[in-house]
Amino acid sequence: MKAWVFQEPGQAHWQEVPDPQVRDSGDAIVRVDAVTICGTDLHILKGDVPDVRPGTVLGHEAVGEVVETGTSVTTVRPGDRVLISCISGCGRCRFCREGAYGQCLGGGGWVLGHLIDGTQAEYVRVPFADVSLHPLPASVNSQDAVLLADIFPTAYEVGVLNGRVRPGDCVAVVGTGPIGLAAIATARLYSPDRIIAIDLAEARLDAAKRLGAEAVANGAEQPERLVHDLTEGLGADVVIEAVGVPESFELCTRIVRPGGHLANVGVHGTPATLHLEDLWNRNVTITTGLVDTYSTPTLLRMMAAGRLPAASLVTHSFELHDMAEAYDVFGRAADTAALKVVLGAPQHMTVALTG
Amino acid sequence: MKAWVFQEPGQAHWQEVPDPQVRDSGDAIVRVDAVTICGTDLHILKGDVPDVRPGTVLGHEAVGEVVETGTSVTTVRPGDRVLISCISGCGRCRFCREGAYGQCLGGGGWVLGHLIDGTQAEYVRVPFADVSLHPLPASVNSQDAVLLADIFPTAYEVGVLNGRVRPGDCVAVVGTGPIGLAAIATARLYSPDRIIAIDLAEARLDAAKRLGAEAVANGAEQPERLVHDLTEGLGADVVIEAVGVPESFELCTRIVRPGGHLANVGVHGTPATLHLEDLWNRNVTITTGLVDTYSTPTLLRMMAAGRLPAASLVTHSFELHDMAEAYDVFGRAADTAALKVVLGAPQHMTVALTG
Amino acid sequence: MKAWVFQEPGQAHWQEVPDPQVRDSGDAIVRVDAVTICGTDLHILKGDVPDVRPGTVLGHEAVGEVVETGTSVTTVRPGDRVLISCISGCGRCRFCREGAYGQCLGGGGWVLGHLIDGTQAEYVRVPFADVSLHPLPASVNSQDAVLLADIFPTAYEVGVLNGRVRPGDCVAVVGTGPIGLAAIATARLYSPDRIIAIDLAEARLDAAKRLGAEAVANGAEQPERLVHDLTEGLGADVVIEAVGVPESFELCTRIVRPGGHLANVGVHGTPATLHLEDLWNRNVTITTGLVDTYSTPTLLRMMAAGRLPAASLVTHSFELHDMAEAYDVFGRAADTAALKVVLGAPQHMTVALTG
Amino acid sequence: MKAWVFQEPGQAHWQEVPDPQVRDSGDAIVRVDAVTICGTDLHILKGDVPDVRPGTVLGHEAVGEVVETGTSVTTVRPGDRVLISCISGCGRCRFCREGAYGQCLGGGGWVLGHLIDGTQAEYVRVPFADVSLHPLPASVNSQDAVLLADIFPTAYEVGVLNGRVRPGDCVAVVGTGPIGLAAIATARLYSPDRIIAIDLAEARLDAAKRLGAEAVANGAEQPERLVHDLTEGLGADVVIEAVGVPESFELCTRIVRPGGHLANVGVHGTPATLHLEDLWNRNVTITTGLVDTYSTPTLLRMMAAGRLPAASLVTHSFELHDMAEAYDVFGRAADTAALKVVLGAPQHMTVALTG
Repeated sequence: MKAWVFQEPGQAHWQEVPDPQVRDSGDAIVRVDAVTICGTDLHILKGDVPDVRPGTVLGHEAVGEVVETGTSVTTVRPGDRVLISCISGCGRCRFCREGAYGQCLGGGGWVLGHLIDGTQAEYVRVPFADVSLHPLPASVNSQDAVLLADIFPTAYEVGVLNGRVRPGDCVAVVGTGPIGLAAIATARLYSPDRIIAIDLAEARLDAAKRLGAEAVANGAEQPERLVHDLTEGLGADVVIEAVGVPESFELCTRIVRPGGHLANVGVHGTPATLHLEDLWNRNVTITTGLVDTYSTPTLLRMMAAGRLPAASLVTHSFELHDMAEAYDVFGRAADTAALKVVLGAPQHMTVALTG
Repeated sequence: MKAWVFQEPGQAHWQEVPDPQVRDSGDAIVRVDAVTICGTDLHILKGDVPDVRPGTVLGHEAVGEVVETGTSVTTVRPGDRVLISCISGCGRCRFCREGAYGQCLGGGGWVLGHLIDGTQAEYVRVPFADVSLHPLPASVNSQDAVLLADIFPTAYEVGVLNGRVRPGDCVAVVGTGPIGLAAIATARLYSPDRIIAIDLAEARLDAAKRLGAEAVANGAEQPERLVHDLTEGLGADVVIEAVGVPESFELCTRIVRPGGHLANVGVHGTPATLHLEDLWNRNVTITTGLVDTYSTPTLLRMMAAGRLPAASLVTHSFELHDMAEAYDVFGRAADTAALKVVLGAPQHMTVALTG
Repeated sequence: MKAWVFQEPGQAHWQEVPDPQVRDSGDAIVRVDAVTICGTDLHILKGDVPDVRPGTVLGHEAVGEVVETGTSVTTVRPGDRVLISCISGCGRCRFCREGAYGQCLGGGGWVLGHLIDGTQAEYVRVPFADVSLHPLPASVNSQDAVLLADIFPTAYEVGVLNGRVRPGDCVAVVGTGPIGLAAIATARLYSPDRIIAIDLAEARLDAAKRLGAEAVANGAEQPERLVHDLTEGLGADVVIEAVGVPESFELCTRIVRPGGHLANVGVHGTPATLHLEDLWNRNVTITTGLVDTYSTPTLLRMMAAGRLPAASLVTHSFELHDMAEAYDVFGRAADTAALKVVLGAPQHMTVALTG
Repeated sequence: MKAWVFQEPGQAHWQEVPDPQVRDSGDAIVRVDAVTICGTDLHILKGDVPDVRPGTVLGHEAVGEVVETGTSVTTVRPGDRVLISCISGCGRCRFCREGAYGQCLGGGGWVLGHLIDGTQAEYVRVPFADVSLHPLPASVNSQDAVLLADIFPTAYEVGVLNGRVRPGDCVAVVGTGPIGLAAIATARLYSPDRIIAIDLAEARLDAAKRLGAEAVANGAEQPERLVHDLTEGLGADVVIEAVGVPESFELCTRIVRPGGHLANVGVHGTPATLHLEDLWNRNVTITTGLVDTYSTPTLLRMMAAGRLPAASLVTHSFELHDMAEAYDVFGRAADTAALKVVLGAPQHMTVALTG
């Protein structure tokens, strides 16, 4: 088959590799119908994630059709159209038993496109298929569904639920790339009073506005003052960090109210400064997290009911073999205004629309 | 009356000042029978807390007898023996309505010995007396009860409850001064499997051991390895920071397990480095907080039932007029092995023992 | 002044009574601008609430203007337009300290129109004014605001929050009178997947539909089957009882899913049968509750932002002196299709619309 | 092999049956070293549980040694000494993903000795072995460990955790058979102020006292008055029902305080009367539940640390082939003062003591 293979920092190719095979009784082989690229894939490509060995097929998000299953798989079977979650879970370790699949100690967690071959390929082997695959209803099209593999559960669990958004809250979202926008969309499920979106890019702020952010602020222009003015000087009830650089995290610590929550979603590569001399007595809760995907079934139900604005997050579509071009467009988001790019055969993308 | 008055950084005196008077209908005047010195008082004395104006009577912890009340006070009356909580609450603002008295927006919070005259005096005016005073049962002696003014609720709420200690947990307490020791004592109420105490001072580690810490580690000798070994490499479920310097906070972030809680209790004067590049995907929750004293009635009930090892935290007793000497002993804790020092007339200290 | 005075079971009159006076330092006297009638008032009138002594002015919901305050009142002053909450709280007892004002042990709780004179009058004395009155923004009109005195916080706290409605849930509301409709409106703040409304009256089911209930069932026509079919046989995640008779409560216990929540809001006069032989192993949580009004400030903010469909709950308006007629219309709801009836001077009702 | 086979109501025999075989890839075959009898087994024997078909081997609690595993089992292997949990879980359905194994929709839940052959036999087939078996440390002997199969997790999860026992609480336990005693033992992990045990049998009350209940009351002698007197008229914070008859449940509803929790653990065969006319406004939470066994790993750790008083719950020991006699002794508990009876080879019971 063909697959997008990481070679060395800066190098990956769409190339021929052997077809994946069932190895463990819990495995499934899935034909990839729709796949997307994550910001994390760009980090891998740059060499920032040394765990990824040369020769690994990248990608941890996809929708496809099951073509083969191991002997112990019971919840899906060949022919099923499924979502491939970015997180696999052994279902047996102490963390999986608590629904913390992202922290799996039994061989799961984030492994696809990281420790084993991933989804940016024609076929993929998915371990722990019973926990990692979610059968899709016909009413959900593949282009939308692929956003449930990572960004929607990440934004919802690590941002909105960890941040404990409640009706009536003032929520600030710092960073309005795909994850930040998904955080805005899922924060709205809790009917906050106001969502304040903060970013440097006007195009992304416009997207935030379309998704329901009621006030936007250019990060370069004193967002602290805006939050201060809109909250009678108290600060936001919940602040969601969706950038992953020290400056944005530190901004978050300045705009959260006493007793408020700061939910970090961003992937960080360097330390931030934590001003404990200001924060020690403010009853602030700071959370971090890798997605566990415990919310995926619920989000899937919401998507089927039309409650998640998935379509507005996808800006570009490609055929699967145009992987290199898709990476280029996604990697130059500032120029291309790309949010999520989705790859796959057109007939798979729209299955739900015509079906 | 006589009182301990802050003059300027480095200067305070036990001197004559006017007796306090009822100013608001919610005030009470209390005769001080037992009072203690907090680490925060040392910070004030050094000039680290510029909010405290020269001429302020210091102290925010005491036990005494009500001698006068304002017209709207209903829960205490002259003659009642009461605990003076370090936190006052207006009972009306949004934070007080949520039990977050420490964040009171209506004139309360930490005001005694900070924004108004405090308890290191023969008499003190206590605002919002209905919320700030707690009548004491005869079975609790004053020397013990004074520890309920600040250190026990602080250790319990900001350390143990914010940290969500649960039965079976591994709890690490970094810093075993009075607050850390009170955290150990109150963490035990939740039957953790193991409490690991970490400090540089052997005398304090001994005290931790006496209070039930089952393993101790000298902070200079690789406490991370000990925690690692005792937790199968995972880290502690709950880590309580009770020092207040960057190094100890950063140690805490290294020894907390994925999915664990880091509860900061220490008073910090400088920023710490937060290694988000290690923490972003570990599902860690970090909390800060000033005590709210919502737990004080419960702790008082526990003390009356003999469940809090208060006596073991008090190392020195003084008469009230020996305030200067008491500050000296408490300020040189490394030499004097002082934990809490309590001042007051001997007959008041032991009221419960003889009564 | 004139007031609606309970005489004996079946008898109440709009009659002259002495003007109320400030008695305690925490009291406020409020001129009533808008008032409504509660189902509980009908129970009192029938003699079902023997605590209410003859001679008591009825009513526990109102909006008005403060005309006088006691010496210790600090959060409102004469001239302020305020909401009078159905619940007063001393702010000092163990329950008030936990925000459980409805269970106040210090002289508060539900006292207005119950243990002391109430709001169906030209003026009313409100005890514990600092906790019981909420200043109203000009943008909220009085006819809407009066619904925040009781039915909105009751439906939200005792129904939606006790029932722990979450995004994606299936919520069943049994009984779609004013409280049930307010439960539907506030359940929607949590973006449930589906709200199933159940009632015997078609007119009320139509109102439920207009408020967003996505499926309705006539209580006489096998609602259990509908819930069963819509939930793949599992039952509803959350069931809210808003009738107050054994049959409706028992229906609720049959349609809640394993692991689900049954939140009772209805006021019951007789016991129900609890089929523990079916429920013991189903992980069901059943809650009861009098409103505590801790959510009133949040709901007021939501109403000001236009997020609560208050207007659709008010079917009839009267002048204050038409109290007898209003009781008649409200008491014959089956014939008059009355939901909430509001009384007051027309100019006060629309202050916000013209202001 | 030999096994205890249910024949018809009133009839069961220790008889020869075929050895169990691995049927599914997730199965394990375990040699039974220690097994106990549950009150539920007596109900089955009486014919109260019609789901149990004639020919079924009874029993759902055991400790043993794995002798064979299916191809997909990864967490245990032949030779491992394991606890067999009373609950199996598929690990894949919506309930298992939430840790609610007892409500498993995928073929698990309570199946052993109920829907499939159970543990009162020389060997047993355990489905979903990865989730249902727990390897035992050598320091825990089998006679103690077998209590972790059902009664300890049931008492802890369904009683103590559902009831939300907190430090300082007053806890009432109604019914002090084995489950009630285990509830007392595990409630103590949360340092309640006082545990009030209520039962009709003096022998059981004595056992409750030995386990730390600080006040006991004979159910026939006005336990309501005792609870009233000990709680200043408020009632208990948490009430745990561990009998399973209407009278005891109804007693529980009368002794729980406003805002308190009633956790039902008892297995009920008939309805109770729920006095909603008294309870509707008291903010009471009532929970029911089948054990989910999510707490088993934690309880096992506590037992290894000596924190669970298991030994005091076992009153009688038998050899495995004395099953009929053991049922007789356990079934006549009022005469024999039996709490838990354990069967097995003596050398297995004391493995930990000698090892």
